[in-house]
Amino acid sequence: MTRISGLMRPASHAGLSPGALVADPASIRPTIRLIAYSPDDIVEIQDCDIESALAARGSRDVVWIDVVGLGDVELIARIGRAFGLHHLALEDVVNLMQRPKVEEFDDHAFIVLRMMVHGRRPETEQMSIFVGEGFVISFQERPGDCLDAVRRRLRRGRGRVRREGADYLAYALIDAIVDGYFPVLEAFGEEIEQLEDEVLDSPRPEHVHRLHGIKRDLLLIRRALWPTRDMVNIIVRDEVEVFGRQARTFMRDVYDHSVQLMDVVETYREIASGLVEVYLSSQSARMNEVMKVLTIISTIFIPLGFLAGLWGMNFEHDSMFGMPELQWKYGYPAALGLMLAVALSLLWYFRRKGWIGRGGDQ
Amino acid sequence: MTRISGLMRPASHAGLSPGALVADPASIRPTIRLIAYSPDDIVEIQDCDIESALAARGSRDVVWIDVVGLGDVELIARIGRAFGLHHLALEDVVNLMQRPKVEEFDDHAFIVLRMMVHGRRPETEQMSIFVGEGFVISFQERPGDCLDAVRRRLRRGRGRVRREGADYLAYALIDAIVDGYFPVLEAFGEEIEQLEDEVLDSPRPEHVHRLHGIKRDLLLIRRALWPTRDMVNIIVRDEVEVFGRQARTFMRDVYDHSVQLMDVVETYREIASGLVEVYLSSQSARMNEVMKVLTIISTIFIPLGFLAGLWGMNFEHDSMFGMPELQWKYGYPAALGLMLAVALSLLWYFRRKGWIGRGGDQ
Amino acid sequence: MTRISGLMRPASHAGLSPGALVADPASIRPTIRLIAYSPDDIVEIQDCDIESALAARGSRDVVWIDVVGLGDVELIARIGRAFGLHHLALEDVVNLMQRPKVEEFDDHAFIVLRMMVHGRRPETEQMSIFVGEGFVISFQERPGDCLDAVRRRLRRGRGRVRREGADYLAYALIDAIVDGYFPVLEAFGEEIEQLEDEVLDSPRPEHVHRLHGIKRDLLLIRRALWPTRDMVNIIVRDEVEVFGRQARTFMRDVYDHSVQLMDVVETYREIASGLVEVYLSSQSARMNEVMKVLTIISTIFIPLGFLAGLWGMNFEHDSMFGMPELQWKYGYPAALGLMLAVALSLLWYFRRKGWIGRGGDQ
Amino acid sequence: MTRISGLMRPASHAGLSPGALVADPASIRPTIRLIAYSPDDIVEIQDCDIESALAARGSRDVVWIDVVGLGDVELIARIGRAFGLHHLALEDVVNLMQRPKVEEFDDHAFIVLRMMVHGRRPETEQMSIFVGEGFVISFQERPGDCLDAVRRRLRRGRGRVRREGADYLAYALIDAIVDGYFPVLEAFGEEIEQLEDEVLDSPRPEHVHRLHGIKRDLLLIRRALWPTRDMVNIIVRDEVEVFGRQARTFMRDVYDHSVQLMDVVETYREIASGLVEVYLSSQSARMNEVMKVLTIISTIFIPLGFLAGLWGMNFEHDSMFGMPELQWKYGYPAALGLMLAVALSLLWYFRRKGWIGRGGDQ
Amino acid sequence: MTRISGLMRPASHAGLSPGALVADPASIRPTIRLIAYSPDDIVEIQDCDIESALAARGSRDVVWIDVVGLGDVELIARIGRAFGLHHLALEDVVNLMQRPKVEEFDDHAFIVLRMMVHGRRPETEQMSIFVGEGFVISFQERPGDCLDAVRRRLRRGRGRVRREGADYLAYALIDAIVDGYFPVLEAFGEEIEQLEDEVLDSPRPEHVHRLHGIKRDLLLIRRALWPTRDMVNIIVRDEVEVFGRQARTFMRDVYDHSVQLMDVVETYREIASGLVEVYLSSQSARMNEVMKVLTIISTIFIPLGFLAGLWGMNFEHDSMFGMPELQWKYGYPAALGLMLAVALSLLWYFRRKGWIGRGGDQ
Repeated sequence: MTRISGLMRPASHAGLSPGALVADPASIRPTIRLIAYSPDDIVEIQDCDIESALAARGSRDVVWIDVVGLGDVELIARIGRAFGLHHLALEDVVNLMQRPKVEEFDDHAFIVLRMMVHGRRPETEQMSIFVGEGFVISFQERPGDCLDAVRRRLRRGRGRVRREGADYLAYALIDAIVDGYFPVLEAFGEEIEQLEDEVLDSPRPEHVHRLHGIKRDLLLIRRALWPTRDMVNIIVRDEVEVFGRQARTFMRDVYDHSVQLMDVVETYREIASGLVEVYLSSQSARMNEVMKVLTIISTIFIPLGFLAGLWGMNFEHDSMFGMPELQWKYGYPAALGLMLAVALSLLWYFRRKGWIGRGGDQ
Repeated sequence: MTRISGLMRPASHAGLSPGALVADPASIRPTIRLIAYSPDDIVEIQDCDIESALAARGSRDVVWIDVVGLGDVELIARIGRAFGLHHLALEDVVNLMQRPKVEEFDDHAFIVLRMMVHGRRPETEQMSIFVGEGFVISFQERPGDCLDAVRRRLRRGRGRVRREGADYLAYALIDAIVDGYFPVLEAFGEEIEQLEDEVLDSPRPEHVHRLHGIKRDLLLIRRALWPTRDMVNIIVRDEVEVFGRQARTFMRDVYDHSVQLMDVVETYREIASGLVEVYLSSQSARMNEVMKVLTIISTIFIPLGFLAGLWGMNFEHDSMFGMPELQWKYGYPAALGLMLAVALSLLWYFRRKGWIGRGGDQ
Repeated sequence: MTRISGLMRPASHAGLSPGALVADPASIRPTIRLIAYSPDDIVEIQDCDIESALAARGSRDVVWIDVVGLGDVELIARIGRAFGLHHLALEDVVNLMQRPKVEEFDDHAFIVLRMMVHGRRPETEQMSIFVGEGFVISFQERPGDCLDAVRRRLRRGRGRVRREGADYLAYALIDAIVDGYFPVLEAFGEEIEQLEDEVLDSPRPEHVHRLHGIKRDLLLIRRALWPTRDMVNIIVRDEVEVFGRQARTFMRDVYDHSVQLMDVVETYREIASGLVEVYLSSQSARMNEVMKVLTIISTIFIPLGFLAGLWGMNFEHDSMFGMPELQWKYGYPAALGLMLAVALSLLWYFRRKGWIGRGGDQ
Repeated sequence: MTRISGLMRPASHAGLSPGALVADPASIRPTIRLIAYSPDDIVEIQDCDIESALAARGSRDVVWIDVVGLGDVELIARIGRAFGLHHLALEDVVNLMQRPKVEEFDDHAFIVLRMMVHGRRPETEQMSIFVGEGFVISFQERPGDCLDAVRRRLRRGRGRVRREGADYLAYALIDAIVDGYFPVLEAFGEEIEQLEDEVLDSPRPEHVHRLHGIKRDLLLIRRALWPTRDMVNIIVRDEVEVFGRQARTFMRDVYDHSVQLMDVVETYREIASGLVEVYLSSQSARMNEVMKVLTIISTIFIPLGFLAGLWGMNFEHDSMFGMPELQWKYGYPAALGLMLAVALSLLWYFRRKGWIGRGGDQ
Repeated sequence: MTRISGLMRPASHAGLSPGALVADPASIRPTIRLIAYSPDDIVEIQDCDIESALAARGSRDVVWIDVVGLGDVELIARIGRAFGLHHLALEDVVNLMQRPKVEEFDDHAFIVLRMMVHGRRPETEQMSIFVGEGFVISFQERPGDCLDAVRRRLRRGRGRVRREGADYLAYALIDAIVDGYFPVLEAFGEEIEQLEDEVLDSPRPEHVHRLHGIKRDLLLIRRALWPTRDMVNIIVRDEVEVFGRQARTFMRDVYDHSVQLMDVVETYREIASGLVEVYLSSQSARMNEVMKVLTIISTIFIPLGFLAGLWGMNFEHDSMFGMPELQWKYGYPAALGLMLAVALSLLWYFRRKGWIGRGGDQ
């Protein structure tokens, strides 16, 4: 489950000197995956050492240094120095729980995204991307991502991705990360649909718990998506220099997707809220039904019980003011008749009120 | 019923190379309907082959190629190449579940709309329209649309539609598609009106289920309408070059209609929410009434039953501390009198509280 | 009652050629009332024929042609041709259920308003106004309007209205129509105030029904007012050429009124929503009270009834394990004492819980 | 109590010729208080006649004519003519229930404010202020205002107010009127705080009524504050010529206060809404508790009562199928034992369900 | 607990001459802490007298005068005169409960912030900061702040803070104050998380009280954060001259943090609201369960009790119309059988309705 209290960077960071790189103690030691390519040439090193990675710069048109794990601050600082990355941006790389954003520096742009991690509950990890002339440097928290399709396209060598520059690669990464939200939301859609059937059919308290969980998770997803959309929009509106006209045209597509994702999140949240309402009205209707059965049975049989008790009293039977009706020849049938009359008139009353006879659902 | 989980393009598309055309496996094989016209000349071919369709370009003032079914990616690509359509736009044609939008390319505009499909539940299909100098190319998912009125006007040859250019035809198509929402909303209006009468008269749990369904469907319609309105507004504000001054003036009308539709959707949603509230308050009032009947009958007859039981006890009657009242001459009438007194004082209490006697509705 | 399904123009209009004038079948045959005036001269013809009306143009400074009833499309088209009115605007005249708006054409402005019709429930009719140099042409759906005060001012000949141009007359009409909302809202205010007293005093389910009706009607009034305010604002901001500086200054007053009306509508809607909440909390409090009475009486007398029943059992009294207490000398008083003790301890328990003795309202 | 129906100007005003001055019949006959001052000279006349008031213009740097009571239209018109005030503004002076606003005319500005009247319930009266070169003219509905502190500062002659011009005096009046909302809101804050304690401790229906009243009154205060803030902002943004740079700087302070007041109103409204929610949940918890007591007692003693009744039946005891158990030697103890067993097993069931034994609050 | 009525400056301030410095009577007598530094030199005086503090100006690159306690108006005025601080700003220093804001004066900027005070409940104190060329003057209400980390960095002499100017110091202070909200919100996050577990597991009324308290406190925090974010944004957007390009770049980081804090506050508020909903639905489900148990037991045993009472009546047994069944040989077993049949058919009825047998949760 997403920890609510984990929405923010650790409080222990507060008050640190800005620009100071301090790794989160839970961070994994980094490994580097290097991909360098030109239109007709590609080299890929799975577990590259830092020297080779830095040396690869300029060897081909685009170098993509993908650092997985943020546990080695010195390594991050060294990459930063080699590529002239701004130290405030480097600080954001290791301070997790950043909001998605894009920041422009002199010769490079810095992009923060939240990438979906597929588990039992939707969780996001921080993905930081630096884009400059001829290089893309990405930092992920953990191994495992949704970028394999991009890597396959790079290796295949066909298509646009090998011919375009680093900005196009950055676009492809952002596109893949944003598209990574679709299957997660699809799973939510299916769960809501199933819950809708169940709530309409036979509402149970667990449904409200699950709807609460869904609404909360959608809230957290919205928190990641909203600034993503704004960030993409800034790139589309030509405000980030490293992205050329071509890449910006493609980013428009990512923008459409992020708007659509926001849309879906909002729609799901409203449907989930509506289902809670349906649940409560069902509960209320069931309660009404239960109470009606109780009331009908009780109001008929409690007075009858009283009558039976009345003639079960032990007053002296023989005197004129003692219970002479007990001696009457037709006393017993008359008593039964009276009870029947009481029961029937109460039934007539309930029917007139519409509590019985128009089905059991009112 | 609109499938909630079908709000988005299939997740399987995520990660594809942008620009790659991949048909949805459920797509129908396309057929082409060609209409080419000049002010005083029109030709219409119902099931046109692709070569004739492409060859028709330029033969008359305006060529309208209407492709129904998106199952043949090659055919779509061929049309795209012939008319110089942007490949990102072509990708959007086959990636269903797009949001309505307009995009401008060098010499043509690309418009996505959602067209109402009339069934038991409102559903929309994707309608993609390319407009350029002298041509309109439209792509629909399925046979059956709301454009027959436009075709009839074209054939009749009177009126403005034959004299104006491709932008006017595009306007006429958009106008017809937006107007196609009116009958659907009218049906919702009638259902809400009927539900209003029923909820005020005799609320039942089904009403809440139907109101939930209506609110959900209106939510989905709003999702289609909102970007439609924005899209039309972009055309009205003179930001799309292929639309001339005349067509833009007419688009203002479409804009008015889309704003009115949004208005109606919001109004209906608020009325439906109000009805759920009325339902819940009715339920609560009924429950109160049921409980009041139960309470009145129970609190009167349970004490009386106790009294009857009391004098039905078998304590030795004869002793002074045994139950001497059973031997009293007026014991029985006195007991009945006491019971009557208890009953009357409780009735008086309930009346004073307003539970009885001011009608049964409090 | 305002028909919810009547919020839109008839669906049958969808798909018509734009510019085609088709009268609503329910429309009344039109009559024309002509008023033409100069600062010191006025002529008024109650049931004017169309030729005289058209001929009056230019005879005096301002000509006001007031057409009541929209059942004769040819007459409307003829006026349109005579004054050069735009055909899209004429189409809007006969297509009822338009939103209030202002549109500017070459030499005239077209204004749509919704005018309050006073009946049992607030309803609006469409009022279309064309303003040009020297003429005002208005189209109403039905006889009866709120413009008599304007006509009287024209006839009296004093004051500004006779000296100013057609734009000032248009302002005076718009002002009168907007001010026509005040008495309607005042009536709502009084009804809400009365409901507030009643709900706080003795809530009944009818109150919720009436509050629902009020909220729904206010929703419909808001739908008419919101675009009216925008429309007036466009005129105030100097965006409509036919309105001169003087008339715009006066329109600022209309703008203030429309903002105030919106304000009042929102305030009333919030108060009405608050009253529903008060109603529900009252219901819940009453239910609690009813249940408390039931619980107190039942939990006291059901155990007592059991005890009475216990000693009414017919077990053999004489044996040692038969019911010897029935033979005891003080058996009966002891039994009564035990019952009293049970009752008192339960009463003490209820008092400790605060269910009795702190007033009956908890 | 603020009358809800009094939110608007009287409907009787609708349709009047604009610019016509018609006094509200309930208005008080006006008295004039004149203060004229220069940096080192001040004259103050408590009940000044109109001629002296008009004559005072120009005698000193600033003349403040304070008219209390709006019952004499002729007097207002005369002041208007003497100072060249715009007739639309004069109309607004006598048409009560105006929204706060500022309007600029050729050589003067017209400001409408709502001034708090301290009574049992917060009410506002209309304060109209004209500011021009060397004069401030204010119109109040009733005697009694919150401007005495300003008058004292004027008389004391120290401080900035005597040295600055009419715009500074206008600022001082606006500042005093806006600050007049603070004590009213403070009183609301204290009432809410007290209600919070009471609702958390022992919720009663009156609390909801009082919360409803508070929310309604805050709604009405917000209606007065919102346009006040906008009005002050217009002055701050240098859009009203008569206010010099100095006065505008000071108005920034008024702006801060009005924003803070809005803030507080919104915060109070949200807290009040939260308290209604707390009340409802408390009601629901109490109901649950009441029902649990009823259910526990009833479900234990009703079956026991049945058993007692069973053995109180009068079937022939002697036959083998008659009620032989009544004759058994240990019949009575066995019956008591059975009853005890039933009671204990039900108690065990309730405990297992958590209805008893974990405190009485679930 | 945060006092709700303490949201505003004391009403007693209303109507004071602007610019008049009046200390809050509860204010502490001030002490001054002086820090003056150049890149390689620092002097710090803990309890500095006012003369030395003023004399320190210019002695080193940056002077930071930190005044703790606002009880000495004369001292504040003296600092104001020495540094040429605007008197309206000085007034805001002593008028507590200001909203966060930045105001620019000729040669200095004035910033108001709300600093978190760590106690049982989140409370804020007012922090006023003046920034000019070479000096920072800060005013706090009480001893104890979150600025020690900044002071340590200053003393250590490494890092950027000693090399940059007064604007950077102001940035560092604002950064530390904004970061001071993180641990407070983290504590809320943990409390909400714990409440979520408890509400889902075993809802109790206290949970709603605590959720209400959390929502109210978050409301108050939001009130402090919202204007803080706006204030920081104004500095980032280059609208405050004293902040140089470097400091503005760093302020972007503070802006990110304040946006993130707002985000977290909103998310927490929505989760808390959702939990109240979950609580209410749990309550309603429990009530249903309780009522079902009551109804099942009552509706079975009340009719049986009636039957038992019936045969306990004392009608003359011997006559033919007296109760002959009591004499029948199998009368008793038949009566027991009838009772069993009644009980079983009611159980069957309840089972068919789904009240029993599908678990106890419906």
